Amino acid sequence: MFVYRFYSMNPQSNTSDSGFDPRGHGFSLWFTGLSGAGKSTIAEAVTSQLRERGHRVEVLDGDEVREHLSRGLTFSKEDRDINVRRIGWIASVLARNGVVAITAAISPYRATRNEVRAMHDGAAPPNATQAAFIEIHIATPLEVCEDRDVKGLYAKARSGEIPEFTGISDPYEAPEKCEITIPTQNQSIEESAAMVLAYLDEHGLSQAL
Amino acid sequence: MFVYRFYSMNPQSNTSDSGFDPRGHGFSLWFTGLSGAGKSTIAEAVTSQLRERGHRVEVLDGDEVREHLSRGLTFSKEDRDINVRRIGWIASVLARNGVVAITAAISPYRATRNEVRAMHDGAAPPNATQAAFIEIHIATPLEVCEDRDVKGLYAKARSGEIPEFTGISDPYEAPEKCEITIPTQNQSIEESAAMVLAYLDEHGLSQAL
Repeated sequence: MFVYRFYSMNPQSNTSDSGFDPRGHGFSLWFTGLSGAGKSTIAEAVTSQLRERGHRVEVLDGDEVREHLSRGLTFSKEDRDINVRRIGWIASVLARNGVVAITAAISPYRATRNEVRAMHDGAAPPNATQAAFIEIHIATPLEVCEDRDVKGLYAKARSGEIPEFTGISDPYEAPEKCEITIPTQNQSIEESAAMVLAYLDEHGLSQAL
Repeated sequence: MFVYRFYSMNPQSNTSDSGFDPRGHGFSLWFTGLSGAGKSTIAEAVTSQLRERGHRVEVLDGDEVREHLSRGLTFSKEDRDINVRRIGWIASVLARNGVVAITAAISPYRATRNEVRAMHDGAAPPNATQAAFIEIHIATPLEVCEDRDVKGLYAKARSGEIPEFTGISDPYEAPEKCEITIPTQNQSIEESAAMVLAYLDEHGLSQAL
């Protein structure tokens, strides 16, 4: 997705009057996919490589965010959705400050992901050819995730012990159009991470300025 | 306050193995004080000057944080306190990523401010002579704030229309020891902002690296 953006004149903006921030381009890598798809593992591999290339990277861990920002929220559909929006807002604040924010929440609803995308409007410098929100679908099929069932969650979902479980009793709405789709079942973690880095290379984002 | 810190080995840390992050020193400027003390006005003056000196600065506006992170919270003591902790956590995440986070919440309780201070442990580089949390007391006396009563809130608090109002019907616990205390009633906004900049100069923090 190629986007040319103008900055809004906004007290939060870190740009000079010319609107150009020469101090580097922050962005969010938003991993989405089923439980057990491999989001965190691939995100971790990408994180190390971006740090090696000089980026400041913040991994917004779902549990840490819940602890600090969403205590009291349940795992109901509505509350999970609120949590995803909060992660999205923090990611956008980091991105507009030149940080690479990496998230790995299931984030099953397309509308919510699009809300989070919209929060990133204006977070990239105006000369950027790439907007600050990069959605990465870890497209591991449900059968594969359920077959692995690393945390035993799918079994509990099938037995009804966990209600409203994404992919089983609650929908996962795959992106219709996203920046990167990763078919993990046919490749190694390294190959999956390399796909993300290749995308960033193409858009001039893999090296920190 | 001079502090020498070691980094904890922490996946959130953006440091190399040596623990030293050469890409600049983030920190939080935590303005605290009564309603109408002048926190936001002075914070704004400091913000422009730090941006001119090359810093990335994020102003964590109380209303924006409420909108994105704390919708549903009331203005009860407990909920205001939760909101302050959330602002504090985001400030610490920004600080550990090299950003200057500026907040201007009343934050009336000493214990909560100290919790927020503790969240910043490890956010400064280990060679730093200054920890990442800089508490600035805008020490305008209650009489002066009430006399100005810019938003008419003190009148409403006196009449009982606003319950639990800081300074009137709820305590403001002034810092016992903080990095900077600003006696605004004796000086201009420019002089107050200059006191903050002078402190940062002394600690080698006023220019971005």
